[in-house]
Amino acid sequence: MKINIGIVGYGNLGKAVEKTVLANKDFNLVAIFSRRTVVSSFNTTVEPYENFKEYSSKIDVMMLCGGSKSDLEIQTPEVLEYFDCINTFDTHAKITSEYEKLGELAKNTNHRLIMSCGWDPGIFSIIRAMFKSIGGNEPITFWGKGVSMGHSDAIRRVKGVIDGVQFTVPNKEAIKLAKQGSLSQDIPLHFRECYVVSKKEDEKSVEEQIKKIPNYFKGQPTTVNFVSQTQLQKLKEKLYHKGEVIESFSNACGSKFQMSFAVSMDSNPEFTASIMSAYIYAICNLKENSMTGSFTNLDIPVSYLFKSSDKKSLLSLC
Amino acid sequence: MKINIGIVGYGNLGKAVEKTVLANKDFNLVAIFSRRTVVSSFNTTVEPYENFKEYSSKIDVMMLCGGSKSDLEIQTPEVLEYFDCINTFDTHAKITSEYEKLGELAKNTNHRLIMSCGWDPGIFSIIRAMFKSIGGNEPITFWGKGVSMGHSDAIRRVKGVIDGVQFTVPNKEAIKLAKQGSLSQDIPLHFRECYVVSKKEDEKSVEEQIKKIPNYFKGQPTTVNFVSQTQLQKLKEKLYHKGEVIESFSNACGSKFQMSFAVSMDSNPEFTASIMSAYIYAICNLKENSMTGSFTNLDIPVSYLFKSSDKKSLLSLC
Repeated sequence: MKINIGIVGYGNLGKAVEKTVLANKDFNLVAIFSRRTVVSSFNTTVEPYENFKEYSSKIDVMMLCGGSKSDLEIQTPEVLEYFDCINTFDTHAKITSEYEKLGELAKNTNHRLIMSCGWDPGIFSIIRAMFKSIGGNEPITFWGKGVSMGHSDAIRRVKGVIDGVQFTVPNKEAIKLAKQGSLSQDIPLHFRECYVVSKKEDEKSVEEQIKKIPNYFKGQPTTVNFVSQTQLQKLKEKLYHKGEVIESFSNACGSKFQMSFAVSMDSNPEFTASIMSAYIYAICNLKENSMTGSFTNLDIPVSYLFKSSDKKSLLSLC
Repeated sequence: MKINIGIVGYGNLGKAVEKTVLANKDFNLVAIFSRRTVVSSFNTTVEPYENFKEYSSKIDVMMLCGGSKSDLEIQTPEVLEYFDCINTFDTHAKITSEYEKLGELAKNTNHRLIMSCGWDPGIFSIIRAMFKSIGGNEPITFWGKGVSMGHSDAIRRVKGVIDGVQFTVPNKEAIKLAKQGSLSQDIPLHFRECYVVSKKEDEKSVEEQIKKIPNYFKGQPTTVNFVSQTQLQKLKEKLYHKGEVIESFSNACGSKFQMSFAVSMDSNPEFTASIMSAYIYAICNLKENSMTGSFTNLDIPVSYLFKSSDKKSLLSLC
C-alpha cells in the first residue's frame, strides 16, 4: 500500500519535493496546497491552501515546504492539527519553543511532526550530536560555497539596495586548522561575497551599511560587488551548496582523533527534498509504534528511515 | 548519581575503555573481569572472569571488550543474563543471528544489549544507513591505512608463517572516483600490505599461498614483505587507523549529490572506547524508557547519547 503525500507550498522546495515524491514507487502524491495560483508541471492536483482540511482522510503525510520566517510558524500548527507533518524550520532561536508548543499540539491531536528536517538543521544536527557525544568538543560547521538566505535577506533590508544575494565561502585555511584541532578564535570561518543592485550614487553608502550589520557581516571578511539586475538574477538561480562538520579531539592519553562529515549538492532544495522524503518512512515507523508528538532528527534512529519490513535486512549495513 | 561500570576483558580494548571510563566524571569504574591474571595500571579491582555474577547489584553496564571470534560469542550471553551490556561484535555473517538470539535473552532477563558498537561496525553503520536512505545507492567504505585484524589472522593461518600483520591501504584514485560517482567494478578499493616472519626457505611458498587466499587477498593488489620478528613486533604496535564512507547519487532531475564521512585516529582501540562510552548513556535512556532487547547503533537515536536531563539543551545542536 502506498503512502499518500501532500505538499504545502510550491516554491523551490515544494517543486523539488514534488519531483522526489513522484520518483518513489512507495509514495502517491495526492495534492499540492498553495496560497498562490500555481500550476504543477507534472499535472499534480493543486488546491488553494485553505482546502487542506478536506483531505484529512486522503493524505498520510504533509510535507511543509514554506519558508521558516513567513510560512512555517503559521502553517505548521494549522496543518499539524489534521495531519502528520515534516517541515524544515530553521530559525534556530525558536526551535526549542516550537518543539515544545507543537509537541503538545501533536500529542493532543494524535499526530507526529518531524521538524527542522533538512541538511542543516537536519542531518548535520545528527552529526554534531554524534561528534559531541564521542569527542566532547563543540563541532565546527562550515557552509558553502553557496547562497545564504539569511544573509541575502539582511542585504535586501539595507536602505538603497534594490536587490541582492550573498554567497558564503568557507575559509579553506580554517577547515585545515579545524581538522588539525588547532583552529584559533581570530581566524574567520567564512568569507562573505555580496552581489548587490543599487543606484550608482548609493553604492558607497550601501557598502558601508552592509559591512556594519551585526551578526551577519560586522567583523567578518566581506566583499560587496555591484552588478546589474540581469547579472543578479543569474546569480540568484545558483542552487549549488556545500557543507562540512568537523570535530577534532584528544583523549586522556593524549591520542588525537578527527571526524568529519561533508555534503556537496548541485541543488540545495533537491537535496533537502531527498532528506525530507527519507523521513516519510520515519513518520510511518513512529505511527506503527504509536508514538506522537514533535521530533527532530536527533530523536529518530536511522533504522526508522526504512520500511519496518526491511528492518532485518538493514543489519547487512552494520 | 554515577553510572557503575564493569569491564570484561583486559586486552588493548579493555585497557582503552578503562582509561576512557576513568576520565569521565559521570562514571564509576567498579571492576575488571579477566580470565588471565592481570594487574590494572590504575589500581582498578581485577576479578577472575567467573566472579562477574557476584557484582549484579553493583554494576549498571558491562563493557564487553573481548574479541569477536573467541570471546564475545561465549561471554555476551553469559554476562547479558545478569547485566546491561555493550559489545563490539564484528563478525558480519553472524550479526543477524546474534541480534535475534541475544535479543530474546535480553528481553527474558529484562536487560539491554548494544552490540557491534564501535566505529565499523558502529557509527559507520549509522552513516551507511543514512546515506542509503537519502541517496538510494549502496555506500562505499574505505579503510586505512591501518592494521586489519581479519587479514592478519588469515596470514597467520598460512603454513610456514611464524607471525604476520596486514595493513589495509585505501586506493586514493578509487576514493576520488567514488566521490565523483564514477567508480567502476574493476578498480581495486584497497591495497594489501603484508609483513611476514618466515624461514628463508618458506618465503616463496608463503607469498604464493597468501596471494591465493579467497575473499582476503585473491584478485586484490597484495604485496608480501618478509621482516624479522623484532621488526614485526614494532609494526604490530601501530594502532593508528582511518576510514571513510562515501555516497554519490543523482536524482530524477539529473542533479548530482555527494556525502562523505571520515574518521582518523591515533589509536583504534581508544577511538572504539570513546564510542562505546558514549553509548553508556544510551543504555541509561533505554532503561528509563523501559526498553529491553538487543540494539545496534541503527536502532538508537543520537539524543540517547546524552543524559536525559540534557535533552532540552541538545536542541541547540540542531
